[in-house]
Amino acid sequence: MNKVNIGLIGAGRIGKMHAEHLAFRVPEANLVAVADVFPEAAQQCAAKCRVPAAFSDYRRILDDPDVDAVVICSSTDTHAQIIEEAAAAGKHIFCEKPIDFDLARIDRALAAVERAGVKLQIGFNRRFDPSFKRARDLVAAGKVGEPHIVRITSRDPGPPPISYIKVSGGIFLDMTIHDFDMARYLIGDEVAEIFAVGAVLVDPEIGKAGDIDTAVITLRYQGGAIGTIDNSRKAVYGYDQRVEVFGSEGAVVVSNNKRDSAVLSDAQGVHGALPLFFFVERYTEAYIAEMQAFVECIQQDKAPPVTGMDGRVPVVMGYAAKKSYEENRPVKLSEID
Amino acid sequence: MNKVNIGLIGAGRIGKMHAEHLAFRVPEANLVAVADVFPEAAQQCAAKCRVPAAFSDYRRILDDPDVDAVVICSSTDTHAQIIEEAAAAGKHIFCEKPIDFDLARIDRALAAVERAGVKLQIGFNRRFDPSFKRARDLVAAGKVGEPHIVRITSRDPGPPPISYIKVSGGIFLDMTIHDFDMARYLIGDEVAEIFAVGAVLVDPEIGKAGDIDTAVITLRYQGGAIGTIDNSRKAVYGYDQRVEVFGSEGAVVVSNNKRDSAVLSDAQGVHGALPLFFFVERYTEAYIAEMQAFVECIQQDKAPPVTGMDGRVPVVMGYAAKKSYEENRPVKLSEID
Amino acid sequence: MNKVNIGLIGAGRIGKMHAEHLAFRVPEANLVAVADVFPEAAQQCAAKCRVPAAFSDYRRILDDPDVDAVVICSSTDTHAQIIEEAAAAGKHIFCEKPIDFDLARIDRALAAVERAGVKLQIGFNRRFDPSFKRARDLVAAGKVGEPHIVRITSRDPGPPPISYIKVSGGIFLDMTIHDFDMARYLIGDEVAEIFAVGAVLVDPEIGKAGDIDTAVITLRYQGGAIGTIDNSRKAVYGYDQRVEVFGSEGAVVVSNNKRDSAVLSDAQGVHGALPLFFFVERYTEAYIAEMQAFVECIQQDKAPPVTGMDGRVPVVMGYAAKKSYEENRPVKLSEID
Amino acid sequence: MNKVNIGLIGAGRIGKMHAEHLAFRVPEANLVAVADVFPEAAQQCAAKCRVPAAFSDYRRILDDPDVDAVVICSSTDTHAQIIEEAAAAGKHIFCEKPIDFDLARIDRALAAVERAGVKLQIGFNRRFDPSFKRARDLVAAGKVGEPHIVRITSRDPGPPPISYIKVSGGIFLDMTIHDFDMARYLIGDEVAEIFAVGAVLVDPEIGKAGDIDTAVITLRYQGGAIGTIDNSRKAVYGYDQRVEVFGSEGAVVVSNNKRDSAVLSDAQGVHGALPLFFFVERYTEAYIAEMQAFVECIQQDKAPPVTGMDGRVPVVMGYAAKKSYEENRPVKLSEID
Repeated sequence: MNKVNIGLIGAGRIGKMHAEHLAFRVPEANLVAVADVFPEAAQQCAAKCRVPAAFSDYRRILDDPDVDAVVICSSTDTHAQIIEEAAAAGKHIFCEKPIDFDLARIDRALAAVERAGVKLQIGFNRRFDPSFKRARDLVAAGKVGEPHIVRITSRDPGPPPISYIKVSGGIFLDMTIHDFDMARYLIGDEVAEIFAVGAVLVDPEIGKAGDIDTAVITLRYQGGAIGTIDNSRKAVYGYDQRVEVFGSEGAVVVSNNKRDSAVLSDAQGVHGALPLFFFVERYTEAYIAEMQAFVECIQQDKAPPVTGMDGRVPVVMGYAAKKSYEENRPVKLSEID
Repeated sequence: MNKVNIGLIGAGRIGKMHAEHLAFRVPEANLVAVADVFPEAAQQCAAKCRVPAAFSDYRRILDDPDVDAVVICSSTDTHAQIIEEAAAAGKHIFCEKPIDFDLARIDRALAAVERAGVKLQIGFNRRFDPSFKRARDLVAAGKVGEPHIVRITSRDPGPPPISYIKVSGGIFLDMTIHDFDMARYLIGDEVAEIFAVGAVLVDPEIGKAGDIDTAVITLRYQGGAIGTIDNSRKAVYGYDQRVEVFGSEGAVVVSNNKRDSAVLSDAQGVHGALPLFFFVERYTEAYIAEMQAFVECIQQDKAPPVTGMDGRVPVVMGYAAKKSYEENRPVKLSEID
Repeated sequence: MNKVNIGLIGAGRIGKMHAEHLAFRVPEANLVAVADVFPEAAQQCAAKCRVPAAFSDYRRILDDPDVDAVVICSSTDTHAQIIEEAAAAGKHIFCEKPIDFDLARIDRALAAVERAGVKLQIGFNRRFDPSFKRARDLVAAGKVGEPHIVRITSRDPGPPPISYIKVSGGIFLDMTIHDFDMARYLIGDEVAEIFAVGAVLVDPEIGKAGDIDTAVITLRYQGGAIGTIDNSRKAVYGYDQRVEVFGSEGAVVVSNNKRDSAVLSDAQGVHGALPLFFFVERYTEAYIAEMQAFVECIQQDKAPPVTGMDGRVPVVMGYAAKKSYEENRPVKLSEID
Repeated sequence: MNKVNIGLIGAGRIGKMHAEHLAFRVPEANLVAVADVFPEAAQQCAAKCRVPAAFSDYRRILDDPDVDAVVICSSTDTHAQIIEEAAAAGKHIFCEKPIDFDLARIDRALAAVERAGVKLQIGFNRRFDPSFKRARDLVAAGKVGEPHIVRITSRDPGPPPISYIKVSGGIFLDMTIHDFDMARYLIGDEVAEIFAVGAVLVDPEIGKAGDIDTAVITLRYQGGAIGTIDNSRKAVYGYDQRVEVFGSEGAVVVSNNKRDSAVLSDAQGVHGALPLFFFVERYTEAYIAEMQAFVECIQQDKAPPVTGMDGRVPVVMGYAAKKSYEENRPVKLSEID
């Protein structure tokens, strides 16, 4: 098949990153247009990535019959709407997470995709990290036997601005949502019940904004395994992203990627480098790989590796966690859905 | 001060280990007598450790005015009674955990110790492990700042016999009790509320015996930190004993001690040694150190490093965890006590 | 300053890699032309990297007044000649190592560069590896005190074809040359004497071709430190690239970068991933960084980070090692030069 | 067989350590007497280890028909003489390294042992370290294929007093001698030729005493493999004891044992514990294991695991290294012997 012509919608931080990858590091992709409500953002991004067209209205991309697919990186509240329009226009769709905070809108968007018969891939990039993928593959290959315990540590190097916190949907829907996806991905089982404990320990302003910054979440899987996730908005040593699956025949552990491997031993101790700073550094490979996978599933007419349902379930989990935290009791996912 | 004359009560597995340490590896201790309800066990232990006296009745030890202290390693149901008698006899006391499963009996024993003015140290050996101690010291020195999250992984290489499981008091009082102590020790704060999830994933016989073999426990500390413990009765790769304290200024992580440091790289991968097999191998140094500390607190008339109250609180926590598991809700420690 | 217009000469394996980096990953570079004696190689490379011009004669690049600099990746025997011509044409020059196997020709090329006042950077890419750079920086900052011992392990995953071995100049000039550069780079001192031991242990065909495949080389630095390098043409576990600098105040050790961080513990042991396969995988970042540094030294009119003399000295060291191996005695660099 | 009755000769630092192990940690040994030219040293050691007899004249031990074996820890210049006398008295012998600095005296001692038909084990304790033993076993089991390169790093935390340096026989016979043994042990092959480079970098006083403090030694094995040893009298971070065997099918690497496994991550980096301080800490297990092996070879009438010839060869290697260093050329072992 020919290269896949792609239009990018939303040239903010994550959009610019995807644009560069599509332009320079995904050989089978052909980035043909960039749209952003801020015309300058679209133009700058297009110029940097040598893309011929820049628009302020994303509909210009949807109207272009030469465009095969869109990559949606606009603000969360626009995702569902653009998905519906893109599906109607017959475009394949990559959409950043979350699809939406409203389950009814998510369902409408997924139904539109279904009707149109286009592909939809959700941006859970961590699945494409070589280490997490290797862990999942080892689990899938039975190397740890039956999974018993899943442990996920996920801590950011620092909190986002309070202004962002206020519109983020809360830690469970903004940050833990990635870990909810990871929890499902690692062992290929669904979660039945969630118990969440949270606290404001990093910054009281986060509490004033109605959110928490530290959380420990227990998951009960349908198949009997138990999971535990711990989150913090601030790890001074950098982005802390570790997982572990323990089972009847062994355990697989993924540790952090470090900035370099030089280790200094002196009279005081042995000193090594910090983890890679944040998601852009840690997940570069993963971001490229998810785009390659998206392009490949279009070219080869395969199912996307992260489906619309994979985008929906973590939102349900986020609401369950929130309800659990608020009511201080375990909450079944069936209570939300 | 002179060497401390010690009588050992209970020459089972753990008793024999303590006897060897007291005889050969704690220079300031003078092991003068061994008692066990099975006379042969007492005699064999005494012979091996070159101890002059072996009795079937521990009261022979309590009656000996030359004995300064006793080390109680008999079955759990005898601990409280022997503590009371030893205290009445004016002996300092080292007692294996748990003191008892009955809080009222614990309280009576602690009151007897209080009245007699003798020292009582409880056998939470892990506190004396150099790595856990180092972690605690780093936390106490403020190196991780305010503690936010405590993570404890504690998995045995294999379950005990079902006959033992039946009288063990259940996983929370038998196995997690060590982790409850560790949770308090690491950050020096008390736990206010516990939520426990459990499952029978290792061996259905354990379920039939009324117990579980896999658990994840969430702790809410009084000071605001959150803890999480995961337990399994069977890790095929050996004894898995790791802790982590994450705080506002950093994190300290303790990993497993391996059997050797030889690492083989071949065409398939990089292969290292398993963790030390079980508690005897992993905690040898710690067991010796706790005896040294006990002898030292007698010689120097200091407070024991693990008090009677340190022995009582984890039992309360065990009951809270059990109740939480049974009722599937978070349980406050104040509900138990 | 404007972007730097670059022409690439030699579109073989390493040339194609540099072309991709210049085209897509060094924003300040403008790759304007590719030349290769095989016209198709030039055209394919140009097409892939969206470069407007492809030539079979590199002189077309030298004649173009809009070209600021050339990157020479052609066969070793052409390097010196092209350097002289490029210098005469006023182009800045990046040249792959080695400059040449003939010291007189190297000197002529360096003199031409000197006369023309252009910049010349040699392709010792490992200097730009974040871990080795970090080690060098720690040494330069005095963190290990006075350097006493330098250890370099450098082993390839597999030998090149025998046809290549025959024209390679021998292991010391083809493979160890990188380690000779590293030895100088790490502690910023020159080597005075070399003793080399070698053997044919990997493949007897290499011996028949007049070369060896395994070597241990001892270096005596002018400042008193001692170095040791070990080389093998075949490490079945992958590319093994480690260094260590030991000094009066400590040591810094660089270990291998692994393919992923997933570690499996099972009943047999603890199993991790192999090192990254070979130089393309291990040194991607370093290759990009050396090009960025080259472009930057042109834009900012700075000295190149790897000079012509840095390209010459390791060739002298290679000859000293060869002579030492052949005569089984330590050889002073002054005997060669 | 009965327990082995042992007399210890020489109650200095290493003698006291062996005495404690024999008394308390080697169940099949029966330490019956201690001799030292300083009567108080003998008495103190005997008292501490609850040994009934203490002598100033070791012949009292040799004359005792109940003594099965002697452990010789006296000063090096007395080893050969005592071996001869002990052999004549029919005692099995454990002797600290080196047997002597004089090859003729070594040969006389070995001949006396041969004639008497007693067992002689030399104190190369590192062979009994679990990690080095595991490396050797992996090599012997063919896990690394044919050995190609052996790397040994051996650095002390600090130099001995200058007074000791002066009578030590020089670094190669005092310190490297352990590494020469390790070089033979790891791959079970003999060394044919040695090249040694040395320097005085730690302390000029060591140079004034006629010795060096830093060395890199290259070994050519009879079977074709190449070895490299690096030594320093002072590693500020502690006792640095690492080995590596690289071969056709893989490599095995032994790293240092650390004081604890706690690792602190803070904003500056990741900080772990130093290696165990020195030989007493690092090799405790190995010292006990070598005594157990000695007792076992007597009880079971087996060949000792470290023979008299194993004690002789490293002395030859030490002289070859010394000659190589002095003449700055590779020296064949056949030149010495």
